[in-house]
Parts: sequence; structure tokens; C-alpha cells
Amino acid sequence: MRVAIAGAGFAGMQAAKGLAGAAVEVVVFDRQNHQSFQPLLYQVATAALTPADIAWPIRSMLRGQDNAQVYMAEVTGVDLAGRRLLTAGGAFEYDLLVLATGAAHAYFGHDEWAPYAPGLKRIEDATDIRRRLLLAFERAELAEDEAERRALTTFVVVGGGPTGVEMAGAISDMARQALPPDFRRVNPEKARVVLVEAGPRILSTFPETLSRYAEDALRRRGVEVLTGTPVTAIDAEGVALGERRIAAGAVVWAAGVAASAAADWLDARRDRAGRVCVDADLTVPGHPEVFVIGDTAHVAGEEGRPVPGIAPAAKQMGAYVAQVITARARGEAPPPPFRYRHQGDLATVGRNAAIVSLGKAKVTGFPGWVLWSVVHVYFLIGVRNRIAVAFSWLWEYLTFRRRARLITEPATASQLAAGLCAAPPPARPPMAAHPAAGRMDGEARLPAGG
Amino acid sequence: MRVAIAGAGFAGMQAAKGLAGAAVEVVVFDRQNHQSFQPLLYQVATAALTPADIAWPIRSMLRGQDNAQVYMAEVTGVDLAGRRLLTAGGAFEYDLLVLATGAAHAYFGHDEWAPYAPGLKRIEDATDIRRRLLLAFERAELAEDEAERRALTTFVVVGGGPTGVEMAGAISDMARQALPPDFRRVNPEKARVVLVEAGPRILSTFPETLSRYAEDALRRRGVEVLTGTPVTAIDAEGVALGERRIAAGAVVWAAGVAASAAADWLDARRDRAGRVCVDADLTVPGHPEVFVIGDTAHVAGEEGRPVPGIAPAAKQMGAYVAQVITARARGEAPPPPFRYRHQGDLATVGRNAAIVSLGKAKVTGFPGWVLWSVVHVYFLIGVRNRIAVAFSWLWEYLTFRRRARLITEPATASQLAAGLCAAPPPARPPMAAHPAAGRMDGEARLPAGG
Repeated sequence: MRVAIAGAGFAGMQAAKGLAGAAVEVVVFDRQNHQSFQPLLYQVATAALTPADIAWPIRSMLRGQDNAQVYMAEVTGVDLAGRRLLTAGGAFEYDLLVLATGAAHAYFGHDEWAPYAPGLKRIEDATDIRRRLLLAFERAELAEDEAERRALTTFVVVGGGPTGVEMAGAISDMARQALPPDFRRVNPEKARVVLVEAGPRILSTFPETLSRYAEDALRRRGVEVLTGTPVTAIDAEGVALGERRIAAGAVVWAAGVAASAAADWLDARRDRAGRVCVDADLTVPGHPEVFVIGDTAHVAGEEGRPVPGIAPAAKQMGAYVAQVITARARGEAPPPPFRYRHQGDLATVGRNAAIVSLGKAKVTGFPGWVLWSVVHVYFLIGVRNRIAVAFSWLWEYLTFRRRARLITEPATASQLAAGLCAAPPPARPPMAAHPAAGRMDGEARLPAGG
Repeated sequence: MRVAIAGAGFAGMQAAKGLAGAAVEVVVFDRQNHQSFQPLLYQVATAALTPADIAWPIRSMLRGQDNAQVYMAEVTGVDLAGRRLLTAGGAFEYDLLVLATGAAHAYFGHDEWAPYAPGLKRIEDATDIRRRLLLAFERAELAEDEAERRALTTFVVVGGGPTGVEMAGAISDMARQALPPDFRRVNPEKARVVLVEAGPRILSTFPETLSRYAEDALRRRGVEVLTGTPVTAIDAEGVALGERRIAAGAVVWAAGVAASAAADWLDARRDRAGRVCVDADLTVPGHPEVFVIGDTAHVAGEEGRPVPGIAPAAKQMGAYVAQVITARARGEAPPPPFRYRHQGDLATVGRNAAIVSLGKAKVTGFPGWVLWSVVHVYFLIGVRNRIAVAFSWLWEYLTFRRRARLITEPATASQLAAGLCAAPPPARPPMAAHPAAGRMDGEARLPAGG
């Protein structure tokens, strides 16, 4: 029996690993060669960790599993009638299909915002945001007047969920703790970080006391928290909040995700986020040979709310599907319907401050932050990465230095030409189009000299 | 007195640091925000180290030096008459100018080879080569027949100097030690690595016994060494050596460098590699206010040979220029003419094998390798990086695992669009144009399945 698994994120990888020893042939497809630990991408974006700390080759994760193969190929569709998975590398016949193709950030019908407000889903997104944040400070150091410097060192994070809160806190920590000794003309401590949330409070999935704690903790570290404030436009100059405009050196999008195109491939019923509505055994109605799991699946949970799109839920679905498939391969009765067990929620605000909600228990402040750190190190893949991340955090905690302050560029023209594409001009950060920033070009006079 | 230093590599940084405490105002210009430790770039290219291990923010290096400022701006020219340094960020008036703008890889009039044979000068080059090497194995795993697989897992390194030797040895080590357990259909141990050198022997700057040792050591780890073999063409399919062709999955250029455009900016006399011919005090003839140092300077050495383009020479020039400038600032007599002190040569062939030439002493094998490792860790910037690199090497030595096996993509279309450029299609590796590789596209049938 041949099982194709599309996507090697938390859900797909758990399904693959759960099939170790089962009498099936497993083939895992992913467009990347690595799984990245998404909950810590924001730390790569803020220069605390380096990509290799939180990414691991998919092949290595399945190295010891004899019945598993890995193909690096992007999934492009499903031929349901022919039972074939369509990929950029060709078509693959399956007996059972597991779609775990995840979600990408979504701009609610405003795709034109994407170039100015990158989201945080892949390693490349994180290094892109890192480049924008660090370049903004470099440009501010070169800037001619205080207004320009002020605009360049203003950072707007859109979306007050865990990613947005963590991102805003980390930008503030980086600006206030790591950068100040290195700059002469701009004072990174005065950087302005604005967290914008359309809803009435940040971290709406947490108990209200915890989201209030987080808001206070953010404010204490200088982050402006604007709730009940929808973003109405994003462009090269910054964001618009109705009548109000905020000129910004970089904008980060953390306001929402949409599922992969799995629902289109299957022509299946979907929810508003594009997630495939699956049955209680995580199969697609009418297609017992097709499972959909993780962020791209809509699974009815308790009290009518769908299972949340978080890592533990994805892993539980992956493990469940492996059980179902193993039972089928053995000709045994299927396990009982999938039931999501919520283990808790946690988010960090920055140095010494995090919130943890475990059932009725709530932990905040330094204890919460330690708990958050331990949990995240524990869930990393591989001893090597756990040591590297723990050491990086310890080092940064003691020295306030961030290890990965690299502005690396997109591929050069000649590298892209290797792909036989038209050679583009080197990329420039969004503020290049800012009228104020324009003055830095050409024969303009530099601040200290000319 | 205002001193502009263009370029924060080994030479420029040493000059800047040497001016700490001098009664001058120092401004360092670099197009990057970080200095990278070029001697270890090949380890990033072969996934043993991660970029942040061998790169350090220029600002942080000068953090404690009150008389120094850093501007991230690319140097584009010099207005000698007006004493202005021209940069992408504007013009800067100087009293003294130090040009330390280094060298880039050069293709001896064959710039059309560049897209197919990247060199190794910057962090981005290293991650580009890493992507090509790792993608070749991924494509080989998907390949349909043995010939295609063979071509994809053939790697050609052009140039038998230290960089070429280290690169060839490291590719072989990676293929034979780190990758095999992870692949099912292709056997990375059988990867073919070819080192091509036009001259009569590899490592021609080393004593002959050492270059013979290195050649033997390379052969023992499966590298084919072709000396006296000029490359006549490089394209998407591989390299041509006269009549002979080698189809390759990736080609690396390590055959030569050319100086930066400093000679053009100054309209100065230059050698064949484009290096500015400087006087014994490292100033440009007729311009005592302009110094040229490092890889972009031609300095007469002993026995009529120019000072070599290596890190210790660059640092010595930087330190010397700082002395000259300090003396001038104090109104003292200038120091005696620059004299290069050669400290030795060393190169590694791979695990447990390196060659070290220190005066009359020669060390090879495991002791040479340990010495090489210690020296390289010692010269890294910062305790943090020394610990990280030493730990990475120890870990790899014990486990044979390479920590940074990430295929990261060039910027996506939307990221580039942020720079207001035309959006290019996603980059593809060079073998995409290979006739054999073409079969992997579209509706082709994948190996294990359909």
C-alpha cells in the first residue's frame, strides 16, 4: 500500500513517523528540503537565532525509517479519479493520500500589501524581515533629519495574535538592548514599535487576564498597542489606519493566514479560511482514501469551534491519521473518531515576560518566560539544535548581543541568471520609494562629511 | 582630520581599529553590514557552518571605538581633486582616504561562465553554492536513469589554489560522510568530485612536497585531480576541457580573482589583476593622501614578487597605514616603508588532513588538521563565534552530521517587488536547462510511483 504525504510540516511529518514499521510504503513530498520550526521564526527575523538553529533536513528526520522516502517537489494538484498526486517533479500514484500542505499568510483581499508587509511562514520570510529591520536602522544612521530618522525607526506589526505579540516584543528588545552601542547618530532605544489589532484585545484566544498582562508588558517595553484599529492601507511609506497614517521603516504582517490550495485540488467543501472540511476520521467526505490534516484542514472541535491551527493540533492529527492507516493496513477496525486534546497556550512578550495558560493554571512574568523557553527548546528537532538554541538564548540573556545580525541580499542577478531567468536589478528595501529616503541617493551629501 | 576607509574587510577593519585613540575622525564605508571570514566561506557552502558563525556586524566590531563611525553604503568612485569619496549614499569629504575594497572572482574574459560557476567571496555566494550542491542531490534522488543521476552528482571545482582544494575536499566529505543515510535511490558516496587546475600542480604557492601530499590526500577521498588542464567552456550542462566534456550537477569557480575598481576610480597604474600599484608607504604615487591596501593593492614584496592576497597580508597593511596616519596626525616622522612578514601558509583537505607550511617547518595529516582548526578558530571575531564554530566542528567530527543543510531560495517575487523591481520567476538551479533534467518536469512519471 502506497501512502503519499504532501507536506512535511508538523502534521505531515508526524503522520510519516507514525507509519514507521507499518506495512506501507511512505513517500513524503515537500517543496523545501527542510522543516522549519515556525514558532521561532520571529527570533530569526529579529537576529536572535540563525536559520540553521530552527530548521532541519526532512531527509534526516526520516533517515532511520526504512519504509519512507522523501522527494523534494512542490505539490501542484490531485488527480482524484486517477489517484495521482501531481507535483512539479511529475505525477505519483497513491493508494492513500495525506494532504498536509499547511497555510500561508493572507491579506484578506489586499494582496497588493504583500510586498510592503511580509508575513512569517518560511525561513526566507524571516531573513527578509531581518533584512528590512536592520536596513531601516542603517538607513536611519545615514538619514539627514530627525523626521526621516523617526520614520525609518518606526516599525508596525499588524495583527495581535501570538506571532504579532512576539514579533513586536522582539523588535523592541532588539532595538533597546542589542543595537544602541553600535550606532552613533540614531538612537535605537527611541525606535517606535506599534502593534495594531483590529479586534477589541490582543491574544484573543487567551484568558482576558493574560492578554491584559501581555498588553501591559508590551507597553512597559515601549510598544504602542492599538486595539480596535483596522489597517486600511499598506504601502511603501507605511500603514494607514483610517484617517491616521504611520510612516514606517518596516511593516510586518501577522494578521491572518489562509489554507493551501488543497480544497481547490480536491474540489471539496471548505470554510472561510479555505480549509477543507473533513469527516471525524480526517478523510474527505466521499473519499476515504484522502486525508487532510494540519493547518489546511477544518476539523470540528469542542463547543462547535474548529480545532485551532497550532503545532500541537497538527501533530495530533498526524499521529491519528497514522493510526487509521496502520489499522487499515492490518485489516483491523478503525480507531475512534479524532478528538483534539488542548494542552494549553503560551506566548512570550520578550525578555523575562511570557504568558502561559495550562487548563486553569496561568503563569506570567519570569516563571512564564522560563517555562516558555524550556517548552520551545524541548520541541526542537535534534539534540544539536536544542543545544545551539539554548546556548544562543543564554548568551544573549547574559550579553544582550544578538548573534545573527546579518543583512543578506536576495540572489544577485548572476545567480538568478543561473536559473535562466531575466536578470532583475538588485532588490531594494521598501523605504527606497519613500520620498524622504530618496534624498539619500545619488549625489546627496552624507551627514558627517561632504 | 577626517579619514574615510572604504571597505571593512581584513585590511580596512585593521586600519580602522589601528586608529583607535588617534586624533582623527574615522568613517568606515561598506556595502555590507557585516564582515565575513572569507577563509571559512567554503564551510558554509558545504553546510558545515551557518552564515552567522563566520560573519559579524561591522558596527559591533567598532562599537567601543569613539572616533569611528560606520556607514553602510557602496563605494562607487573617488573625486580625487575634490577629495570626496563617492558612494551610493552620497559623497563624503575626506582629508585622508584608505581604499580597501578587496577583490572579486574573475573569469578571465569569460563573464558568461559566471551564472554556471559561482565563486566564493560573500555569504550570499556561499549559500548559493550550498543550494546548488544540495539541490543536485535532491534532483538526483528524483532522476529517472543512472546516467542522469551520475551527471547530477558530479561536481567540478575549477582552480587548484587553497579555496579550490578546500572546496573539493569538503564536497567529498559532505557527500561521503553526511548524506548517505538520508538518500534511498542515489548513493552520495558515489558522487564524483573533479578538481581542475590549469597549472602543473595544485597549491602552487606551497612547497612541492606539501602539494603532492594534498593531491594524494584528495585522491584518497575520491577526488579526481586534473592538473595541466585548462577549462575551455562552462555552461548549464557542465564544463569542457578542450575536447573532453564533464556533465556536472554544480560547478564552483575558484580559479582567480580581480581587484575592485579602485584603479579606475583613481585612474592609477595597475597590474594585470587590476590592483593599484602603490608606493612603499602604501600611498598612490602623487597622492600622499590616498592609501590603497589589501587585495586591491599591488605592493612589491621580497624577491620581486608582490605581497600575496591573503588575510595576514591585508591585516599587516591595515595596521601599517594606521601607523602612518597616526604619525601624521601627531606631526611625527613617518614609519619606515611597509615590509610584509610572511607567517606561513595553510590549507585543509578535509577531515583529518591539512597542510601547514611555517618557515622551514611542514606539518601534514591529523596534526596539520588540528593546527589548521585551532588557527582558524583563533582568528574568528568574537568569543561567541569561536565557541559556535569549535562546537560545530566537534559535533560534526563526532556525528558526521552537518548542521546547516538548508536549501534556501533567492528572494521571492513579492520580496523583490518590495524593491519596486520587475518580479522575476523563481530561480532554478543550472541543471534545469540540462536536457536530461528536463524530463523531470511536467507530467513526467516519478520514479517510485505513477
